[in-house]
Amino acid sequence: MEKIRVGVVGAAGYAGEELLRLLLRHDRVEITAITSRKNAGSPVETVFPRFTGSGLTFVEPSAEDLAKKCDVAFLALPHGLAAEYAIPLLKFGVKVIDISADFRLRSTAKYEEYYGVPHPEPELLKEAVYGQPERYREALKGARLVACAGCYPTSIILASAPLLASKLVKPTNIVASSMSGVTGAGRKVDLAYIFPECNESLKAYKVCGHRHLPEIEQELAVAAGVDEIAMNFIPHLVPANRGINSTILFDAAEGCTLEKIEEVYHKAYDNEQFVRVLPAKKCSDTKYVTMTNVCEIGFNYDAHTNKVIVTSVIDNLTKGASGQAIQCMNIMFGFPESTGLL
Amino acid sequence: MEKIRVGVVGAAGYAGEELLRLLLRHDRVEITAITSRKNAGSPVETVFPRFTGSGLTFVEPSAEDLAKKCDVAFLALPHGLAAEYAIPLLKFGVKVIDISADFRLRSTAKYEEYYGVPHPEPELLKEAVYGQPERYREALKGARLVACAGCYPTSIILASAPLLASKLVKPTNIVASSMSGVTGAGRKVDLAYIFPECNESLKAYKVCGHRHLPEIEQELAVAAGVDEIAMNFIPHLVPANRGINSTILFDAAEGCTLEKIEEVYHKAYDNEQFVRVLPAKKCSDTKYVTMTNVCEIGFNYDAHTNKVIVTSVIDNLTKGASGQAIQCMNIMFGFPESTGLL
Amino acid sequence: MEKIRVGVVGAAGYAGEELLRLLLRHDRVEITAITSRKNAGSPVETVFPRFTGSGLTFVEPSAEDLAKKCDVAFLALPHGLAAEYAIPLLKFGVKVIDISADFRLRSTAKYEEYYGVPHPEPELLKEAVYGQPERYREALKGARLVACAGCYPTSIILASAPLLASKLVKPTNIVASSMSGVTGAGRKVDLAYIFPECNESLKAYKVCGHRHLPEIEQELAVAAGVDEIAMNFIPHLVPANRGINSTILFDAAEGCTLEKIEEVYHKAYDNEQFVRVLPAKKCSDTKYVTMTNVCEIGFNYDAHTNKVIVTSVIDNLTKGASGQAIQCMNIMFGFPESTGLL
Amino acid sequence: MEKIRVGVVGAAGYAGEELLRLLLRHDRVEITAITSRKNAGSPVETVFPRFTGSGLTFVEPSAEDLAKKCDVAFLALPHGLAAEYAIPLLKFGVKVIDISADFRLRSTAKYEEYYGVPHPEPELLKEAVYGQPERYREALKGARLVACAGCYPTSIILASAPLLASKLVKPTNIVASSMSGVTGAGRKVDLAYIFPECNESLKAYKVCGHRHLPEIEQELAVAAGVDEIAMNFIPHLVPANRGINSTILFDAAEGCTLEKIEEVYHKAYDNEQFVRVLPAKKCSDTKYVTMTNVCEIGFNYDAHTNKVIVTSVIDNLTKGASGQAIQCMNIMFGFPESTGLL
Repeated sequence: MEKIRVGVVGAAGYAGEELLRLLLRHDRVEITAITSRKNAGSPVETVFPRFTGSGLTFVEPSAEDLAKKCDVAFLALPHGLAAEYAIPLLKFGVKVIDISADFRLRSTAKYEEYYGVPHPEPELLKEAVYGQPERYREALKGARLVACAGCYPTSIILASAPLLASKLVKPTNIVASSMSGVTGAGRKVDLAYIFPECNESLKAYKVCGHRHLPEIEQELAVAAGVDEIAMNFIPHLVPANRGINSTILFDAAEGCTLEKIEEVYHKAYDNEQFVRVLPAKKCSDTKYVTMTNVCEIGFNYDAHTNKVIVTSVIDNLTKGASGQAIQCMNIMFGFPESTGLL
Repeated sequence: MEKIRVGVVGAAGYAGEELLRLLLRHDRVEITAITSRKNAGSPVETVFPRFTGSGLTFVEPSAEDLAKKCDVAFLALPHGLAAEYAIPLLKFGVKVIDISADFRLRSTAKYEEYYGVPHPEPELLKEAVYGQPERYREALKGARLVACAGCYPTSIILASAPLLASKLVKPTNIVASSMSGVTGAGRKVDLAYIFPECNESLKAYKVCGHRHLPEIEQELAVAAGVDEIAMNFIPHLVPANRGINSTILFDAAEGCTLEKIEEVYHKAYDNEQFVRVLPAKKCSDTKYVTMTNVCEIGFNYDAHTNKVIVTSVIDNLTKGASGQAIQCMNIMFGFPESTGLL
Repeated sequence: MEKIRVGVVGAAGYAGEELLRLLLRHDRVEITAITSRKNAGSPVETVFPRFTGSGLTFVEPSAEDLAKKCDVAFLALPHGLAAEYAIPLLKFGVKVIDISADFRLRSTAKYEEYYGVPHPEPELLKEAVYGQPERYREALKGARLVACAGCYPTSIILASAPLLASKLVKPTNIVASSMSGVTGAGRKVDLAYIFPECNESLKAYKVCGHRHLPEIEQELAVAAGVDEIAMNFIPHLVPANRGINSTILFDAAEGCTLEKIEEVYHKAYDNEQFVRVLPAKKCSDTKYVTMTNVCEIGFNYDAHTNKVIVTSVIDNLTKGASGQAIQCMNIMFGFPESTGLL
Repeated sequence: MEKIRVGVVGAAGYAGEELLRLLLRHDRVEITAITSRKNAGSPVETVFPRFTGSGLTFVEPSAEDLAKKCDVAFLALPHGLAAEYAIPLLKFGVKVIDISADFRLRSTAKYEEYYGVPHPEPELLKEAVYGQPERYREALKGARLVACAGCYPTSIILASAPLLASKLVKPTNIVASSMSGVTGAGRKVDLAYIFPECNESLKAYKVCGHRHLPEIEQELAVAAGVDEIAMNFIPHLVPANRGINSTILFDAAEGCTLEKIEEVYHKAYDNEQFVRVLPAKKCSDTKYVTMTNVCEIGFNYDAHTNKVIVTSVIDNLTKGASGQAIQCMNIMFGFPESTGLL
């Protein structure tokens, strides 16, 4: 069985580590390059002892060099930086699966509003396929450039899209309240993320205008079939390593019942390997998806306020980043979709 | 300086431990009885080594016995059980400060709806003063029976009441999303609360109809000056020992601005020792209130959805239970309100 | 490729969960029975949602029934109970891989000293092969009954045996100080293990005479080629889910140097897939072995006290229990040793 | 009641925060200066919201300025830097209580061996009183310069000194294995200390030659009445905020019994307010000393190896740093020793 050659750009962060963990047991790929500016020249085990024996060594990131070695490159870089690599890599004919936020927004105006600078390559924004297999599977098959869904967005969109599409809930007044473990901030060395600052600390942050908000709104508008959605997304940081829990409230539309919600979810996800729908009234729990590529969804209906309340959990590094990226790769290259992910 | 004699009923739980921690350094009280069915006869240090040297020993709970020894009794018992002690204690002339939920609801119908049984002493429901000093200070002065505010309710009501009273926000469509550390479940021995089940686990629970909901709705209706409020309250359990964070979303009323919100909070709380209002746009963090009696409140205005977003944190065992109970006691007995709490 | 039929007895605990996680992706086995008294009749996902879709359902444990369905049974039971199943299963011709402590001690006297009762089947103590592949690989090939090494013992013995065998260290005055995450206590519902009792708690326990001590002493005596070893083993409980770290101090024998120690370890483990030897002076870290079957060993020499100091980490549920059990099974049935474990 | 004027140099770290927490409720002191280079000019609440209302503002550290404002200065600085302030402060007549390691070693040779540079002011090494009230109370009364005992050393010395002095244990072959929460590393921004690197991570570090080792050896030699002790001290980092647990093994001397050990401890500590001796065979637990100034000691005798095994816990920031520093100050200034510490 021939293998494709893959590169991981930015392999010394947590998303990079998770990519390596999954790709090393993926039987259709060969890892031909891993990059890290800071660790170039060092064997991977100096940063991640668990990969001792893999024979991998970090190299300086260079699009030209990657183009020689790789059929596809995963970009596990901070936003802004990812675009710098994506553009030349695509020119060299390398397929790009970007885990950053650089190509997720369709609107250049939104991009500029939220990132403060014009997008460096607006044409690519149009071309990029949003990397959420459950919703864009067909488009992913021929994609050159995939903009993987963000971690919070993945949890929220998978839980919300079928409901919005079904019209059982209204596309207005949506509130998503999410909690994330600290790996969600990346492997970032900052006072805010040292252990004693995070342990025994529960807090919201960026409650207005988090950068994942326009991405969520964009995709929920698509799902709902409306031009625009304005909603609230409230992220919280909590003392855990992995996991995102999103609790989402919708105004129920007329005729909405728990049974109909259940039917909608089952229709949407019964054939999906990586979405699990809980029985009605159960709440999802991050611990049941840790180190898996699964999104687990629970649903409730609150008669006294006429709200639909949905809970959705993922492992932020797997389904929220690297696992989903590999799922996208599997689709792009015609591998069985769950290869390397079970 | 004469001291009052206090008893702690149910002193072997976490709220009981916190009461002892605070009362032992309170210079106007003498602890004359601590009860625990399970530990009766044992010195307090067999359960809580930190109280070695206090000379306290658990006894069987008996209203008659407590009446002989105490001017005031704190009830740190599960709901249902608290009422069983409150009723005879009051008859014996002992003042009662109940940390449980037994006397918090004004409506016997609501009590029956949420607890599944009729209230054992409806008259006392009417008499009980809701134990939240910032809102019922005057009534507390003469109280015989205090129903201390619950932990989630304390965080939500303190942050919401001034806004609702000011009419800057609407009393409809309120969403409160809260996270609690595991001591919030009490010192309960249950599979759901063992360390490996809670650590690295983020989850919502009882998203419809949590028993704190009618209490919150009752008090917010009072604050808003309306007959009834129907809102959503979504509790989550997260891997921390102490702390509650509540994030609350309101529909802004016409004319609402960040400046007006700030003014309302400052007017409400500038003279309060145990409420801290953050500068606009800052979010509160449980770690800054751990083991204090303080509620820290942050506020934001989201123009794109016209919502006011408030964050509120407390230590669930201190301001959310035992600290607030002592604050109530200080008021009842004419002590300076912060005695033993700084 | 024909598959063997395996049963997991006591599948609702943490070792059981880890067995299922690993066996479900093992391509040479079919899980034909999982038992749990408490959960008999329920699908596995009612206890472990992550196994939704596996089609497994808990049944009552019955040796007769298991004998019909299984070629081999894993016993993930408390000690004492395991023997009750092992004996009839063996009679029915089922191979048994016991994760409990019931068959680990060669000496019936030691068993009785530490467990307070005579061993129910002393003949089987003699027959049982100690389940540590790196040291008993040959014997495991033909084994009917495997007594898997305990979690603490695995970490300590793998790190100590080569050194003792080499005579670079003395078989006297050994001190092993270990820390374990809370899953090491099993899925036990007990006040001592609820989250708030474990979080922010660091403590030693059973510092004299822990039940793993005679097992460690037995195996280290074998390794050292002496009749008996008396040593100290000090376990500690710390707030983590998974992982054991053991730090072991030995008196260096004459002529011991860091280089010789390094040579001994490399000779012992360079061909082992599941033992990783760190460069001299590095300390091992549980986070690099979490959810792997690897034991990571670091070594130091302290000239000022003439001690050799070794650190050894494992995931207590994988290499310390279920992973090692599967490694044993692979050997017993002639599968490649790492099948299902990478 | 007149108050003394105190300054806290390096008030933006964890030891500084703990000093402020304790000093703000100490009724014999007035905090007249808090310094932080990085935060000079900012009110204390910008760093520590819990001190809102204290009116304190960080200033640049300047010995001259501090001399005008303070009777005594606490130095909560990294080692090396502390000496730079201590020397001029003493010249200006300000008493100095140093929480760093700069003045703890009596031997300039040891200092140079462990710190790699000659001591800047060897005369002060001789003058400095070791800040451990239980052992140097008399000397502290007249001290100008106090070198507070380190965190690990405090836990180990308090548990070991009485035993060594009693000759029930030998001064040779001592092994101390300690675990510390992450605040022990200070408020240091470093990859090793971010939450995901520490959570679920158990590891030893600096197992040979940690800088606290010569301090421990020096003080245990004093206690044992011998010229020198060479021992092993093995620190571990574990996922907790606060707390140190030390488990210490000694070779028992002839005639040693559990009863005699108990007697020795009670004689040493029955009159001490901040040392708690557990009943024989109990192990200490950090959670019972969190946010207290107490050291809790447990003891065991292991007949099968003839070892005495002692466990000792403290809160590293309180008894291991700031609480003990204040206890020293109370002695120096003739205040009741527990002022501000209960």
